[in-house]
Amino acid sequence: MLLYPGVTLLDLIGPQSVLAPSCNVHVVWKNTDLLETDSGIVMKATSTLEECPEDLDVLFVPGGEFSIMRDEGVLRFLADRGSRARYVTSVCGGSIVLGAAGLLQGYEATSHWSARDKLALFGATPVAARLVRDRNRITGGGVTAGIDFGLVLLAELLGEDVAKLSQLALEYDPAPPFDAGTPEQAGPEIMGKMQEWLGPMGDVLTPMCAAAAKDMGKYTPVVN
Amino acid sequence: MLLYPGVTLLDLIGPQSVLAPSCNVHVVWKNTDLLETDSGIVMKATSTLEECPEDLDVLFVPGGEFSIMRDEGVLRFLADRGSRARYVTSVCGGSIVLGAAGLLQGYEATSHWSARDKLALFGATPVAARLVRDRNRITGGGVTAGIDFGLVLLAELLGEDVAKLSQLALEYDPAPPFDAGTPEQAGPEIMGKMQEWLGPMGDVLTPMCAAAAKDMGKYTPVVN
Repeated sequence: MLLYPGVTLLDLIGPQSVLAPSCNVHVVWKNTDLLETDSGIVMKATSTLEECPEDLDVLFVPGGEFSIMRDEGVLRFLADRGSRARYVTSVCGGSIVLGAAGLLQGYEATSHWSARDKLALFGATPVAARLVRDRNRITGGGVTAGIDFGLVLLAELLGEDVAKLSQLALEYDPAPPFDAGTPEQAGPEIMGKMQEWLGPMGDVLTPMCAAAAKDMGKYTPVVN
Repeated sequence: MLLYPGVTLLDLIGPQSVLAPSCNVHVVWKNTDLLETDSGIVMKATSTLEECPEDLDVLFVPGGEFSIMRDEGVLRFLADRGSRARYVTSVCGGSIVLGAAGLLQGYEATSHWSARDKLALFGATPVAARLVRDRNRITGGGVTAGIDFGLVLLAELLGEDVAKLSQLALEYDPAPPFDAGTPEQAGPEIMGKMQEWLGPMGDVLTPMCAAAAKDMGKYTPVVN
């Protein structure tokens, strides 16, 4: 699981909480210095990119600060580990980073609703779904989709009973007090306020993705 | 929001992620040294118990390592801040800690399904629900209930529109792949495996709570 400055903490902690009790999870970054996540909480990686095992069952990228998609060291790491991992996965904007590493070309994938259409710039087919599986690529939607994603992945890795035990341990019987989890459910009024809140993020993301897509070929070729 | 060694990280990060973009959240512990959470991730508080404002809108306690309920410094802090906070709240086993601080006497409350009945030892009335509100006490069920809890609390503090914006930003349109989030849903076979997995935890928790309940009177009297 990739950690980085400005990561959306819940993108990471959702699936990490599902998987950690029964899997060997490495939370990796360039170093093990303290770094600040999106929510202001300071934490650190459990190991470095260099220490991370060469052959992974799962490569996972959470969303967050999108500039990570222009970090060559990170992209080389992802392209390398992703070329051999059994599963190449993401939650939220993490799929954009996988895309920039050249790992989603020719695959169906999803992302946070606000970024999903940008996947096309990386040769992926965006799908509006909470979870998209295409061969060994499993991508989840925005933030909280990481819990659903984690349970699906755990069932895949260790069987349905282990996933159900995890669901029970996490008492995951969700009961959202409102029906506003997607743009369609939230409706035009809330979406209007959201656009104000996000400001020009959408405008910045498109050229950033376009530039990242141009450099995609620079990284280790993907073989699986 | 109380942080402590062995805290269940998702108990904390769920509501923290809901609230942090629009509220001033303090994540507090005795010091700002690094500490290890239940899932192996190392992080630190944003401020100390001493630095924490005297008068809080919300006091929040997540679950985790239950021995925290025997920590006098923590209990005095909770009893003090809880006596003036507008809302006294918890997710998962955090309600047991509130109970030990004398903050749930005469209130209905909930907790993680595995610990819920222990609330009675602290003079509270356990309720089997994902979220229980009794006057200014708002307690959530196990782990993932923190997201539902966070949205309810945010609506209370800043209105429904802000809560809906948060739900949309977090793309909270949950889709659990299995129906195993409560003991009733999981059924006897999965519950049997869970009992094996938990081992003697239940046996340890009852005497620990009973001892904590005896000492409840030692802390600052609760006035609200």
